[in-house]
Amino acid sequence: MPDGRVSTEEAVLAAHAGDAWFAASLPEAVVFPESAEEVSALLKFASEKGVPVTPRGAGRGYVGGCVPARGGIAVSLMRMNRILEINREDGVAVAQPGVITGDLQDAVLAQGLFYPPDPASLRECSLGGNVATNAGGPRCLKYGVTRHYILGLQVVLMDGTIVRVGGRTHKNKMGLDLIGMFVGSEGLLGVVTEITVRLLPAPPASATLAASFAEATGAAAAVQAVLAHGFLPAAMEVADHFTLEAARAHLGADKVPPGNAHVILELDGQPASVRGEAASLAELLRKVGALTVKTATTPAESDAIWGLRRAFSGSLRATGLTKLNEDVTVPRSRLVDLFVLGGALQAKYGFPVACFGHAGDGNIHVNIMVDPNEPDTTTRMEAALDELFDHVVAWGGAISGEHGVGLAKKRWWLKAAPAELRRLTAMVKSALDPQSLLNPGKFV
Amino acid sequence: MPDGRVSTEEAVLAAHAGDAWFAASLPEAVVFPESAEEVSALLKFASEKGVPVTPRGAGRGYVGGCVPARGGIAVSLMRMNRILEINREDGVAVAQPGVITGDLQDAVLAQGLFYPPDPASLRECSLGGNVATNAGGPRCLKYGVTRHYILGLQVVLMDGTIVRVGGRTHKNKMGLDLIGMFVGSEGLLGVVTEITVRLLPAPPASATLAASFAEATGAAAAVQAVLAHGFLPAAMEVADHFTLEAARAHLGADKVPPGNAHVILELDGQPASVRGEAASLAELLRKVGALTVKTATTPAESDAIWGLRRAFSGSLRATGLTKLNEDVTVPRSRLVDLFVLGGALQAKYGFPVACFGHAGDGNIHVNIMVDPNEPDTTTRMEAALDELFDHVVAWGGAISGEHGVGLAKKRWWLKAAPAELRRLTAMVKSALDPQSLLNPGKFV
Repeated sequence: MPDGRVSTEEAVLAAHAGDAWFAASLPEAVVFPESAEEVSALLKFASEKGVPVTPRGAGRGYVGGCVPARGGIAVSLMRMNRILEINREDGVAVAQPGVITGDLQDAVLAQGLFYPPDPASLRECSLGGNVATNAGGPRCLKYGVTRHYILGLQVVLMDGTIVRVGGRTHKNKMGLDLIGMFVGSEGLLGVVTEITVRLLPAPPASATLAASFAEATGAAAAVQAVLAHGFLPAAMEVADHFTLEAARAHLGADKVPPGNAHVILELDGQPASVRGEAASLAELLRKVGALTVKTATTPAESDAIWGLRRAFSGSLRATGLTKLNEDVTVPRSRLVDLFVLGGALQAKYGFPVACFGHAGDGNIHVNIMVDPNEPDTTTRMEAALDELFDHVVAWGGAISGEHGVGLAKKRWWLKAAPAELRRLTAMVKSALDPQSLLNPGKFV
Repeated sequence: MPDGRVSTEEAVLAAHAGDAWFAASLPEAVVFPESAEEVSALLKFASEKGVPVTPRGAGRGYVGGCVPARGGIAVSLMRMNRILEINREDGVAVAQPGVITGDLQDAVLAQGLFYPPDPASLRECSLGGNVATNAGGPRCLKYGVTRHYILGLQVVLMDGTIVRVGGRTHKNKMGLDLIGMFVGSEGLLGVVTEITVRLLPAPPASATLAASFAEATGAAAAVQAVLAHGFLPAAMEVADHFTLEAARAHLGADKVPPGNAHVILELDGQPASVRGEAASLAELLRKVGALTVKTATTPAESDAIWGLRRAFSGSLRATGLTKLNEDVTVPRSRLVDLFVLGGALQAKYGFPVACFGHAGDGNIHVNIMVDPNEPDTTTRMEAALDELFDHVVAWGGAISGEHGVGLAKKRWWLKAAPAELRRLTAMVKSALDPQSLLNPGKFV
C-alpha cells in the first residue's frame, strides 16, 4: 500500500466503527484505497492472513451493515470518488463507488439526464453504498430500485481477482446476472470499485399533490383508486395518524393538514401531460373523499409539500426518543392492516409508533420510538419488533424493503428466511468467499 | 413418478430435442412433471444417478438453450400451466412456468392490469422460458426486462431442495438477490416451478408513430432527439435499408414507406397526455428530417404500423434463405456504426444482412441471411459472425440482448467474456450444481 492509505489512529478507527444505526465495533485498521489494484492487493493480503475485511461507503446505512463486527480491516471507498464519464448519447455514466449519490444526480441533470434512485440520504450516501444495499426511495414506484440502473460493475473478489460484470449497454443477456448477485449483497461477496449506471432522459416537468384524509382507510383507498385509473405516479407516499400528530406537536398544528392520514403524489413527464394529469388526479382524490387537496406545480410549492414529508423524521426525533426505523414492506392490500398494527403496538407496549413511507410499493417505515434509558426498554422493544415482523412475514411481506439486513435485522432474517433459503444464501457466499472474511458476522 | 409423466416415444423425444434454432440433440427420456414435488423427486433421482437434466418451456428460444446437448432427461414444464392468482390490490400474479406469456397478459389486462414484457413470440413462448432467458421485447425501453417484473420464484435445486426466493412485495431487500441469480440463468442453476410477477396499472391509452428517413443517420438522430426532449416512449424501433428492401420485395413497394430507414415509436399513458405527446413527437420527427410521419391512435391503425414491423421477419424468410437472428446490443451512440457494419458484411461476404430492432436500448437484431446449401456457407458465415461480434465487443456492446447464450453464442461467449468472468460464472454454477448435470454443454 502506498503511503497515507492505512490508519490505525484511534479517532479514525472510531469513525469507521459503525453507520447511522447504534451498534459499533472497532476495526484494527482503516484502509483508504485509491484504485481497484490497491483493493486487490489488500484483499489478497487479507485472504492470505485470514483477516476480516469490511467494506464501507459513506456510512449512512440504517442497519449496521458496515460495522466491522469481527474487527480486522475497515475499507473506506470514499477516496474513490470521481465521476469518470457522463455520456449523453449512450445514456450512461461511469463513477467510482465513493461518489455521493446526489452529486451524481446533479451532474447528469446538468446534461439533461436523470438518475432516478433517490434514497432519503442522497446528499450524504455514496453510490457504492447504494449498490451494496440496492437502495430505493420514493421514486421506486415508477422507476424501480438501484439494481434497475446498474449496467456494469468492476468488482474485486476476496482472492484479489478484479472482474468486470455487465457492461454499458441498456440491455444485456450475456451469461448469468452477476450484477444482480452483487447489487444488494451488503459487502458480503466482493468490493465494488467502479459502477456504470443507466440514465434516462430528464423529465422536463413535474407536479406534486398532497391530500389529507379523515382515516387511514381513506388514504389506502385513494392509493388503490389512483392505480385503478391507470396512473403510475413517480411517487406515492403516505403518513399515518401518529406521524401527523408528532408533526403537529413539533411544527404546530397549523403547519399540518387536518385528518389522520396524508398522501403525497408526484407526477413527472412532459409539461402539458403533467398539468392535465395533476388536475385529473386532484379531482379523483376529492371524489374518493380527500379532506384537502393541494397541487404544486412550481419547484418551490413542491418543495413545501416534500418539506413536510421530510420533517416527519425530525418531528419524531424531537420527542427526544430513539427512532427505530423498520423499513418493512407489505403487499399493498395490507397498508391499513399495518397502520392498525402500529396503533396496537403503541397501545400494548407504550412506545409511540409512527408509520409513513412509500405506499405505492407497500414499503412503509414503521418507526418505534423508544427511550433507551428506561430499564425494560430492550425487552419491550424486542417483543414489539417480534410482533411487528411476525405479522409482516405472515402477510407475505419483507422484513426490509430498502435498508438491508445488516446487524439490525439479523435476528429476524433467521425467522423470515426458511432453512432452504438460508442454505442457498450460504452456498453462494461460500463459493465467493470460502473463508468468510468479507463483512463477517452479518446475516450469512 | 405417477403414470403418464415419462415418455421415451421417438416422436416425443424428437419434439424435445431442440428449440427454434437449428441444433438438436435427442434426450433419452422426456418427463412432464405436474408439481414442484415431482420436479424435486426427478432432480434427486438424476443427482443420484448422475443423469443430465435439461429443463424447457415452450421451446421457442433462438439459441438452442434447451437442447439436451448431453442427452439424459428433457424436463418439459408445459403441463404446469395454471395462473394461480391475479391480485389487483397487491398488483401481483402468481403463475406456473408453463403459462403462455400472452395468455398471462390477456388475463391480467381483463382486470385492468399490465404485465409489460413483450417478447415477439409472446403468443407461443412460456413464462418459465422468459424467466430462463430474462426475455425482453420492444417495450423494454420504458418498462425494462422480465427481471424487473419477477417478485418471487419457487425453484427446485439440483439436489431436490424446493426453495422460495423473493416474495410478493414490490420492494424487497431481504438477503441476496437470488431472484436475479435465477432469472436469465438459462436453466443452469435450478428449475423454476412457480413465478410471482409484479403488475402495473394498465395504461388506458396508447399511440403509435411511424416515421421514414432518407438515411440511417437521420433515424439515429431522431432517436437521440426524442430522448433529448425528455420523452421515454414505451418502444422505439428502427429498421434499416436492407430490411426495408426485403419488405418491398416481399410485400410490394407501395406497402413500405419511402427512404432507407424507418422508426416506430409507441406512447402509452393517460388519453389526453398520449394525444398531446403524439402530436409533439410528430412535429419533432418532421423537424429532424422525417420524410413521412404517420400517427395511429386507434388499435387498428396501430396494428397496421406494427404489422409492417412484424412482417420484416417474414419478408426476410420469404427470400428462401435461413435467417441467423443475432440479437446484439450496442451502446446507443453506435447505432449508425452497426448499420454501416451490416452493409460492409453484406458486401464482403455476399450474404444479405438486415438490421432492425429496439433502437432505444441499442438492441438491434442483425439478421444474416444464408443459404445452407452452398458449399462454403459455414466458413463464410462463421467469418461474418466473427467480424460482427468482434466489432460489437470492441464497441462495448453485448453479444446477446435478449435471446441468451445457449449453444448458438457459446463460441463468442468465450471471446466476449474474459477469463475472470468465466471463472466467476463457473464458481456460481458449481456451487449450485456441483456435478454439472443441469442443462450441461452450454456456456458454463
